Amino acid sequence: MKALVYTQAKEVIFRDETDPVVEQGEVLVRIEAVGICGSDLHAFLGHDERRIGPLILGHEGSGTVVGGEMDGQKVVINPLVTCGACPDCFSGRSNLCANREIISMAPRQGAFAQRVSIPERNLVAVPEGMDMTRAALAEPIATAWHAVSVAAQKTHRPLAECRALVFGGGAVGLAAALSLHAQGCKNILLAETNELRRQTVDKEGICTSFDPINNNIVDENSVDVVVDCVGGNPTRKAASAAIRPGGVIVHVGLMDALDGLDVRKITLQEITFCGTYTYTMKDFQAAVNAMNSGALGDLSWYEERPLSEGAQAFDDLLNNRSSSAKIVLRP
Amino acid sequence: MKALVYTQAKEVIFRDETDPVVEQGEVLVRIEAVGICGSDLHAFLGHDERRIGPLILGHEGSGTVVGGEMDGQKVVINPLVTCGACPDCFSGRSNLCANREIISMAPRQGAFAQRVSIPERNLVAVPEGMDMTRAALAEPIATAWHAVSVAAQKTHRPLAECRALVFGGGAVGLAAALSLHAQGCKNILLAETNELRRQTVDKEGICTSFDPINNNIVDENSVDVVVDCVGGNPTRKAASAAIRPGGVIVHVGLMDALDGLDVRKITLQEITFCGTYTYTMKDFQAAVNAMNSGALGDLSWYEERPLSEGAQAFDDLLNNRSSSAKIVLRP
Repeated sequence: MKALVYTQAKEVIFRDETDPVVEQGEVLVRIEAVGICGSDLHAFLGHDERRIGPLILGHEGSGTVVGGEMDGQKVVINPLVTCGACPDCFSGRSNLCANREIISMAPRQGAFAQRVSIPERNLVAVPEGMDMTRAALAEPIATAWHAVSVAAQKTHRPLAECRALVFGGGAVGLAAALSLHAQGCKNILLAETNELRRQTVDKEGICTSFDPINNNIVDENSVDVVVDCVGGNPTRKAASAAIRPGGVIVHVGLMDALDGLDVRKITLQEITFCGTYTYTMKDFQAAVNAMNSGALGDLSWYEERPLSEGAQAFDDLLNNRSSSAKIVLRP
Repeated sequence: MKALVYTQAKEVIFRDETDPVVEQGEVLVRIEAVGICGSDLHAFLGHDERRIGPLILGHEGSGTVVGGEMDGQKVVINPLVTCGACPDCFSGRSNLCANREIISMAPRQGAFAQRVSIPERNLVAVPEGMDMTRAALAEPIATAWHAVSVAAQKTHRPLAECRALVFGGGAVGLAAALSLHAQGCKNILLAETNELRRQTVDKEGICTSFDPINNNIVDENSVDVVVDCVGGNPTRKAASAAIRPGGVIVHVGLMDALDGLDVRKITLQEITFCGTYTYTMKDFQAAVNAMNSGALGDLSWYEERPLSEGAQAFDDLLNNRSSSAKIVLRP
């Protein structure tokens, strides 16, 4: 099969690879669309010690089951493979499973390929009529949906009464704003430094976007909920300043781990800082349902390209030349 | 009246001061016992920009109401004076009140004195027969009770099934271990570097104490709940290592604000890091009830000294010469 292979830092090559081996309990999925994630870029730059080349990256896939009882079924792939048998899996927190694996990280190859093998229990059916490229947005949307759901659990007021601030206008940031809106939040700010991305965000008409460096419109102690989809030192600093006493900061992004939090304020003002990682199958299903219902808008904030031109897409993303919140590749 | 006055860095003087002015809604309390808090030591060293001398420190007071309808009533003082009229006060989170004041911080003088003036709504009646020196422990116990209650709310498992780790064997740390025990936790570890304090902790027989520097007995990813009553860089580092995926770190101490958290682990493992500050009247009442019921043991972990010898007590505490978890001064 053809695949886009990460070979070494700053190099991906579109080439022939051997077909995946289908293990017991797994099915083969012919990939129709697969998004490029910030973590793919991070790995591409050689910054992810968990992703060593040669490796097929990509974990945001939609496609069609090939063979077996589900042959022909349109699906999105939950790329997080969990054991299903540990206390975390049993308690509904499968994303914390100590044995979790994710496709695009050894030992599992990713979805920048024509085919991928995945446990059958990781498939979510695509509703009748949903476009398969849009369906590939389910993964970043599930990530955001989960983060917003955690915020809704932790905050002391209903989201409908909260003022929320999202950091990042990429797919997860935009999906967080859309998820906040879908879950009832009426007052949403979104900080994004890239003007092209702000324009994409603004088209949704559900939040106020701004440039946090040159035009910070957020007063100190003024927001109830922060969803930080960047996760860097500057966003943690800005989140610490913006959050009101008793507020909740949900930390989704993994840009860096260099300090930034105002621990003194967190203590004196009883602020909750909570990490979130991926999603459970429940989140994934909820994301697909919300996508299908129209609650998250028309989902037109992506751009489609052939998988064979993946290297150019990586380059464009790294140089801020794309206005889309997401580039989706088609094998 | 006589008072122990903080005059400048590293100096407290026992001397005559003018009596407090009793404002509307307030009552005069003749102090019978008042504990020395870590924050008093912090201020004494000149490290608290919110406490500038000359100032009467001390906020852990018990005493007897003088005059008015409550004349003769034995009380403990909730030193946190809140407005009672803001959204936080209305929602049961009065400790976050933006207008909050605390005795021992301008404009309010503290309780290292023969008398203090305090709003009547800040008084908690001392149950019949409770020793007034023990009663002065209500404030640090309420702080710990509140922190443990927040941990119980945020954790995904009942405290009875949690393994908990407390940092600090002073009054708040010991009270946190006692509160965890009283709230059902059966597996409690307590980290304290001072051997004398560990001996005091061990007498309670409710937890396993250890020296975190020379004999760290806590494995990585092994505890469900951390209550950090130190709040320093080393304890945040140790808390980050010890906490299991999905666990809860409650941060009570205010030793420093210098980094220490493992933000990457917090994100990838969905850990909750939550500050807690003081207590509400509900916590204060719950603490006094638990003290009175015997659920927190015999509360013999304090040492009594005359207020006139306060300077020596400060010196002993700063040089780790006291084995007690608390020194209580008697005016």
